[in-house]
Amino acid sequence: MPFDDRIETAISRAIRNGQAAPSPGKLASALQYTVTPGGARIRPKILLSVSAACGDDNPELANAAAAALELIHCASLVHDDLPCFDDADTRRGKPAVHRAFGEPLAVLTGDSLIIMAFSVLTHAAALDSARAIELLKVLAERTGMPNGICAGQGWESEEVIDLSAYHRAKTGALFIAATQMGAIAAGQDGEQWEDLGARIGEAFQVADDLRDALYDEETLGKPAGQDDLHGRPNAVAELGVAGAIRRMKDILSGAISSIPKCPGEAMLAKMVNAQAEMLTPIKWRAGQASHIPGE
Amino acid sequence: MPFDDRIETAISRAIRNGQAAPSPGKLASALQYTVTPGGARIRPKILLSVSAACGDDNPELANAAAAALELIHCASLVHDDLPCFDDADTRRGKPAVHRAFGEPLAVLTGDSLIIMAFSVLTHAAALDSARAIELLKVLAERTGMPNGICAGQGWESEEVIDLSAYHRAKTGALFIAATQMGAIAAGQDGEQWEDLGARIGEAFQVADDLRDALYDEETLGKPAGQDDLHGRPNAVAELGVAGAIRRMKDILSGAISSIPKCPGEAMLAKMVNAQAEMLTPIKWRAGQASHIPGE
Repeated sequence: MPFDDRIETAISRAIRNGQAAPSPGKLASALQYTVTPGGARIRPKILLSVSAACGDDNPELANAAAAALELIHCASLVHDDLPCFDDADTRRGKPAVHRAFGEPLAVLTGDSLIIMAFSVLTHAAALDSARAIELLKVLAERTGMPNGICAGQGWESEEVIDLSAYHRAKTGALFIAATQMGAIAAGQDGEQWEDLGARIGEAFQVADDLRDALYDEETLGKPAGQDDLHGRPNAVAELGVAGAIRRMKDILSGAISSIPKCPGEAMLAKMVNAQAEMLTPIKWRAGQASHIPGE
Repeated sequence: MPFDDRIETAISRAIRNGQAAPSPGKLASALQYTVTPGGARIRPKILLSVSAACGDDNPELANAAAAALELIHCASLVHDDLPCFDDADTRRGKPAVHRAFGEPLAVLTGDSLIIMAFSVLTHAAALDSARAIELLKVLAERTGMPNGICAGQGWESEEVIDLSAYHRAKTGALFIAATQMGAIAAGQDGEQWEDLGARIGEAFQVADDLRDALYDEETLGKPAGQDDLHGRPNAVAELGVAGAIRRMKDILSGAISSIPKCPGEAMLAKMVNAQAEMLTPIKWRAGQASHIPGE
């Protein structure tokens, strides 16, 4: 089954299980609204790519891991869009959850999706309990405090920011989770896959800075110019557009050379290159224009 | 070690582990602020009581379960107090987290505590992986959708409320988690402990209605009269004070007769009776006045 189908099937199953008993209808709708249609599903795709490169000997477990990771990512978007953070009107080309369902349901949607992510992995323990526990550990570490996306968002409330800890937690964490969880799902040690995830995360951050600076709201599917508006550090402001693109490509070359030895090493390198192409703003690409996936 | 010490030690350890790397200071402080000083710690105490009644053969695992459950409860209080829900100024006798740290950090505090709860249990898997997985399953089920406290809160956004599902999820869920997790931590089947948890939860809901109707903000440590204000169903409005107290005592008698056969059955019955006394508003108690623990 192609990655897209595996990811969508696993996410749909998780959402459906969340409605297995009488449940409040608006919250159930908000969960569905939040996860479909998806954005680029970059993190779960990386996860499945790494699992495939490592042999993918337990695909159902990898699917559960991919769904869990994407549910966490969706939860973070819903909470980040809240009025007290970005106060975003739109996300993935439609009204943000708090605009469509109100703020109370947006808070609960994020909470429910976080819990659902852990629930999915807990139930996947029937497939391989030792691997499931490792997957749960990595997911918790890269989501919470002090190394996860919550910590990353938390740095934005500090007067003095540890920039390296900030970036690693804010954007890097879920990419590290993606590569580590992909390896673990396929029975490999997650540790040695941290570096690849961190580098992809770094490249993605630069790409996101580029898109934020260059695109309008309609193309992005979410408000543009947010970094400038919130005074957040931005690679385009620092290096210019061409410099930022060069930086991104350098980071991705480093990522490719950091891929641990595994049967699917060459395939993974190709995947990273494809990501690089997709992350590059349209008019700077080698090939022709294509759709920019909204996050 | 007495229950209080076991609970506080396990919670402190979890919070400390959340600061093991460079972490954003305000979010770290907000986590600490939220969990200490605690309220009555009723749920983890019930959990440890059930574990003790079942032999408590893995006390460290029971401690981890108790901490995880209380962290989830604390997370729910922080999010419930947000301006978009109760907009509470105070909690446990001090400014609510969103008043003390601002709304962004209050959202992140709740998120981080939810994740921390799962993290604690994941790390406790080293003590007994099969039991830890069962504990994780129960915690996720009683926290998320469709049977957990998120669902309970979600019902408040519906025009037509399924009252039984609402109460079971909103207040009952974490009491069911308490009895089931206590049993599981001690190697017993959690299923047969659901009924006891549900009944204690129901009694607690009536007691909470009584306190909300009878006490002022200073005694409660949080705003009073919230049920009336938000038009929430309330046992005092329905049955009067004496009727509500009778109802609570009936439910607790039922709870005692629902205790599954176990070595510590008599001790558990005593614990439930002690809870009943503590839950009864001061001037209606048999004994003399004592402190009303704030939630």
